[in-house]
Amino acid sequence: MSLIDNLNWRHAVKAYDPSKKVSEEHIAQIVEAARLAPTSSGLQPFKVIVVRDAEIKEKLSKGALNPECMRDASHVIIFAAWDRYTEERIDKVYDFTTEERGLPKGRFVSYTDKLKSIYLPQPAELNFAHTARQTYIALGLALAQAAELKIDTTPVEGFNNEWVDEVLDLKKHGLKSVSLMYVGYADQEKDWVGSMKKVRIPKEEFVMEF
Amino acid sequence: MSLIDNLNWRHAVKAYDPSKKVSEEHIAQIVEAARLAPTSSGLQPFKVIVVRDAEIKEKLSKGALNPECMRDASHVIIFAAWDRYTEERIDKVYDFTTEERGLPKGRFVSYTDKLKSIYLPQPAELNFAHTARQTYIALGLALAQAAELKIDTTPVEGFNNEWVDEVLDLKKHGLKSVSLMYVGYADQEKDWVGSMKKVRIPKEEFVMEF
Repeated sequence: MSLIDNLNWRHAVKAYDPSKKVSEEHIAQIVEAARLAPTSSGLQPFKVIVVRDAEIKEKLSKGALNPECMRDASHVIIFAAWDRYTEERIDKVYDFTTEERGLPKGRFVSYTDKLKSIYLPQPAELNFAHTARQTYIALGLALAQAAELKIDTTPVEGFNNEWVDEVLDLKKHGLKSVSLMYVGYADQEKDWVGSMKKVRIPKEEFVMEF
Repeated sequence: MSLIDNLNWRHAVKAYDPSKKVSEEHIAQIVEAARLAPTSSGLQPFKVIVVRDAEIKEKLSKGALNPECMRDASHVIIFAAWDRYTEERIDKVYDFTTEERGLPKGRFVSYTDKLKSIYLPQPAELNFAHTARQTYIALGLALAQAAELKIDTTPVEGFNNEWVDEVLDLKKHGLKSVSLMYVGYADQEKDWVGSMKKVRIPKEEFVMEF
């Protein structure tokens, strides 16, 4: 199936069948799509957190608007972005890239110097606004990958971020949660949206042409 | 090819062959992937702008960090988000959805009332921070769709937003540019990054497991 077919197939599931689990092989493929996502200057300023442990899911669900949906999902994936850019973080990514490509050390110094001169003087919140945006590219690709595998998902923005950060101890890692993605198999009866027509803004309104 | 194969295939192209044009049928498929992108509360708070006109591309390129790359690309796609949420915009989307699904008018009023109570009192900049994030989901899916078609792309964040907004008269439409996507066929000789190894943070570092 093509990407467009897969995007037409998927929807934001409202209820999961708690008896059905997603295989770890498929979870790995969903994570891989997120890992391959392009990001600004290739910095990949976020991590993907996979929660399968029932107790932690239960705890996390106390910060969810739809706790039952989260609890019944097979896995919960959290997209958590760097809380700020730092010299160390930028250097680490570019040192690794330089090494992997067999290039002379310092090959990208003029470029990373430019990045640092832009990001480091900015307040942390402005840095985070930028890192958080990047996670959405990965979220979109992870949703598409799950759809390719005919696995149901729910992208979630509305939740108690502070609570999720606390449960997963994200502050320690310099991360802040941005979005959640429930992964599993829908409960066909309770998932009221599953039988409804997919609606999108008509093409003529969505696109402007020049 | 699978989504993962396509993501491995693509890279951010640095130089395009100006003699090679992307077919309008393929452009339509790239736009369709963006149109099908999931967004917060299904509001799709952005438009996709397709520029093929050489004069407008030339004008836009004055606001680009890489003007030659933009000019030589076959098409330039601009992702432009709503500058704020308004009652009218929210109602328009939900009125359309209600009608398309054959539901009784007002079916989603309690939900849209909640959205309005959150978004409308917020300053426009905070609204825009949220609408801008949504465009990245569509950007990621549009890049993946182009890769499926073996069409080259460059996602671009670094450009003069005010200039692009002015050239395309976006303010009039209540929109602000967020990112650009150059679309075309790479100039294999000038595209220095094309022959380099694709590098991503290793999986063990990218993922946290619970």
